[in-house]
Parts: sequence; structure tokens; C-alpha cells
Amino acid sequence: MELKSAHACFGGAQRYYQHDSREIGLPMKFSVYLPPKAVAGEKVPAVLYLAGLTCTEETFMTKAGAQRLAAELNIALIAPDTSPRGANVPGESDSWDFGVGAGFYLDAQQAPWEQNWRMESYLIEELLPLLARHLPIDTQRLGIFGHSMGGHGALTLALHHPGVFKSLSAFAPIANPVNCPWGQKAFAGYLGANQAAWAQHDATRLMESQGKPPYPAGILIDQGLADKFLIEKQLLPEALEAACAQLGQPLTLRRHAGYDHGYYFIQTFIDDHLRHHAQQLQA
Amino acid sequence: MELKSAHACFGGAQRYYQHDSREIGLPMKFSVYLPPKAVAGEKVPAVLYLAGLTCTEETFMTKAGAQRLAAELNIALIAPDTSPRGANVPGESDSWDFGVGAGFYLDAQQAPWEQNWRMESYLIEELLPLLARHLPIDTQRLGIFGHSMGGHGALTLALHHPGVFKSLSAFAPIANPVNCPWGQKAFAGYLGANQAAWAQHDATRLMESQGKPPYPAGILIDQGLADKFLIEKQLLPEALEAACAQLGQPLTLRRHAGYDHGYYFIQTFIDDHLRHHAQQLQA
Repeated sequence: MELKSAHACFGGAQRYYQHDSREIGLPMKFSVYLPPKAVAGEKVPAVLYLAGLTCTEETFMTKAGAQRLAAELNIALIAPDTSPRGANVPGESDSWDFGVGAGFYLDAQQAPWEQNWRMESYLIEELLPLLARHLPIDTQRLGIFGHSMGGHGALTLALHHPGVFKSLSAFAPIANPVNCPWGQKAFAGYLGANQAAWAQHDATRLMESQGKPPYPAGILIDQGLADKFLIEKQLLPEALEAACAQLGQPLTLRRHAGYDHGYYFIQTFIDDHLRHHAQQLQA
Repeated sequence: MELKSAHACFGGAQRYYQHDSREIGLPMKFSVYLPPKAVAGEKVPAVLYLAGLTCTEETFMTKAGAQRLAAELNIALIAPDTSPRGANVPGESDSWDFGVGAGFYLDAQQAPWEQNWRMESYLIEELLPLLARHLPIDTQRLGIFGHSMGGHGALTLALHHPGVFKSLSAFAPIANPVNCPWGQKAFAGYLGANQAAWAQHDATRLMESQGKPPYPAGILIDQGLADKFLIEKQLLPEALEAACAQLGQPLTLRRHAGYDHGYYFIQTFIDDHLRHHAQQLQA
């Protein structure tokens, strides 16, 4: 785990790291914000943020304006990259919504992707344990959130790995990928024709298959109504909303008139998400 | 004035514009954040932010985290680009600290720069009047601030144009450019050998030549002590501090251990700057 850069920020530390990933088979980058008390050595809760298509480990830390309140709430922030980089798989950079920058937070099951595109195992089996060993982060108090493809990642990883994440929220998530063009393209490429595998990476299908509400304290989702990807039916929050209602899973799905899909939307509501996580992680 | 994009943000509007500039002779871009009351039609005070070397009209709006408090304080934010672009002057992109992205907020006095590199006249004579005509901005209540080269710009434009800006602050400004490598390179290129012209664009020299304190309510400057450009003597805030002390100009120059030159530093202290301006503009 190599520290690439560090910046003082709101009395804490904004750090960028690189490490050689066993799961990915390549160097991977990630960023961490440590609040002041963590810099002083105290173990703190953390929230893992998963970014959207084309983003990197930098996007959230530079654009979301999250550090101010994270410092005050005494919560660490973790932001990984969105895919392997440098694998040189043929076609990996041919489109912005598949391959590089578009790992969809799953383990690919077919060639030529299955060797490197293992973002789910990478995050759960490798990155979180690595952080627990090296940083003052209390892995018993982890939350997860994300945006768009990363909102999909947050929802599906939370449902796949019960007990790992104590709190869950999302911004404009791809909530039902088996029924949208982004998801269909990604799942066909990474998972092949196996529809059962697709369902395992679809937040709505996963919610439908739960025996009881996995987050009884509630899930928070914000969605802008001027989001062109909502209008183009890439996001489908209504499908997840119906599945949560059916299950009795408390969901606060806020629809915001005028807001689009970008980080001006995210920064507007980031404080509410951090407070949502803090309340559950510090309970 | 063409609206290129608009994004809802904290109940207000983040807008990106382009217009054909008379002073520059080329299209110029700028960004404006309007707080909710301005979107509703009320005239509001505004602060002009000048960015540093290599930055654009986007940098401050994406990285500084200023919109949250600007919305609350009911202040508009204006961020122009840092130089002409597309002039195709020979050598304009040969270095990152001169030419494109490095206009130094002055009017060049020699070839091949004097046709397009007219950032001072552009901002004062063209952009501010344009904004006053088209947006609900009260140009009787304008403040100015900036970072690094833009801190130099804020200080020198404020001192050059008495009465235009009612409040003044800076992050890590190039405070005495005639005595640092960045300033010497830029002034030699844009102004030639005329040392009197150099002094007209040096905040410290301008402060030394004032008859009385131009900002009796005080100037705020924040400076990180881990800023490598401070250590390399590019910034020289102590020179401006001495000139202010000599004149009796109130200056709050805060030196922050551990902070560097970047936007993690700026976002940490942006609220204090916005409150500084709000206090003076809304007095």
C-alpha cells in the first residue's frame, strides 16, 4: 500500500494510495479521507463510496464536498477506482459504459474479462481487509453508498454481503440493471447469457429475494427529476421502490425537481447521506 | 451570452456561459453560481473568483465546495477563465505558467500578446458590465478573491480599481510577483522591460503606493505552510504583510501548518472567505 499523495483537509487527511491487487492482478488506486480524530489515531467508522461510469478514485473526493461534514461527524471516507486499468484486454476502452471505468462492481464470469474484472471480490475480500490492517478504520462500523453505476454497486454489495455494511444509501442508482440498456450491455459482456447470474447483480431482484428487510433502519436514495438517465429509463428507481414496499424494507426515495445526474446534485444532498450513515454507524 | 449548461445546486443554479469577447477578440467562457433568491429574481451581491495557473472557469465551481454556503448567505459566485484560448499565438502553450491558462489578470503591453491577453480590461470593462445587464447581480455589492495567480489578480485588480470591489480576500496569492520567478517570467513576457509597468501589477508595490488603507474593514489571506510554492518563494506573503503593516491596512494573514497549495486547502477555509465577503457586502 503505497501513499501517492496526502493533503491536509478540514483538519484531517485526504490521501491517495496505490497497491498491487491480488484479485485484479494489476495495480489499483484508491483514496481515503481520514477525519481529524483518525489522524490522531482513534478508530473511526467509515463509508465506502462507489463512483459511476468513467469516474476514478478522485472524482468523489474532488467534487462531492463531503470532507467538511465527514470531519465534523468523525467518519472516514473510502473511494476506490471504478475498474481495472492497464489490463489491455481487447476492446476494454471502446465504450465509456463498458470495460475501463465501468466495472459494475461484480466479478466477471467469462473471457476476456474474468481474469481482471473482479471488482466485487477486490472490494470485499481485499481492499476492506487491507484498510482494516493499515488504517484506523473500524470495519465493524462500515457503511456503503454510491452514485449511478456506483449506486448499483452499493445496493448489490450490501445485499450480497449481509452484515458487512451497517448503513446504505445511493444517489441516482442503476436500480434494476437487468431492465436497462447499461445493465444489459454490462451483464451480457461480463456475465454472459446466464440470467440467474444477472439477477444476482440486480438490486431490485435481490431485494425481491430477501426473506426480511435487510436494512430495518432504512435506506436513503436521492434522485433528480431532471436526470436525463432517469428519463431514458437507465435508472428505474420505481422498480426498487416497489420491491422494498413489497418486502416492508423502509426506503426514503426522495425525488428532487430540477436536479440532474451530476456532482452539483450530489453535493447538494451529500450532507443528508453522511448524517444517515453517521446515525446508523454511531448508534 | 450563450448558456452552455445549467445545473440545479443547493436550490440555486450553477451555470456555464460563453460569449464573444470584444476585449479578448475571442470567445470566452465563465461560470456563475446564483443562490436561490437570485434564481427567484432578487438582485444579490456577488464575489468574483480568479483561479490560478492552468485552471479554467470550471475549477473553482467543481472543487472549492463554495455553493453550499453561498446559497445560505445569498451571494452569487462568478468564475472566469484564466486566459484567452484559441488565439494561436506562437508559443502560447509552451509552458504551464505563461500564455494559455496563465493570463495573470493584466493587459499585455507587447507583441505577440497585446492583442488578446487583456484579462484586466476584459474583466473590469466587459465581463462585469455584461453580468450586470443580464443577471440579477448587484454590481454595487461586488467582492473579489482568488487563488495563487488569481490571488495576485484579486489583490491587484482591487487596488487598481478603487470602489469597484467592496471586499477582498485571497488564498495563497502571488503577493510580490516582481520578486518571484513566476511573476518575473510573466511580466517580462507580457509587459517587457518597463519596471514601472511591473510595479503596477504587483500587490505589494501597489499597497506601498496607497495614500491610505484601501480596505479599512480588512483583507483576509489564508496561506498553507506546507505549500511548496511558498517554500520556493513564489508567493512571498510576508512582503505584502509588511506593506500592509506600514500603511496601517488591516490584514488577517493566517498561516496554516500542514496545508498545501491545492483545493483541499481552499475548501477547508472557503466558508471563512465567503463570510468575510458577506459581512462586508451585506453591511
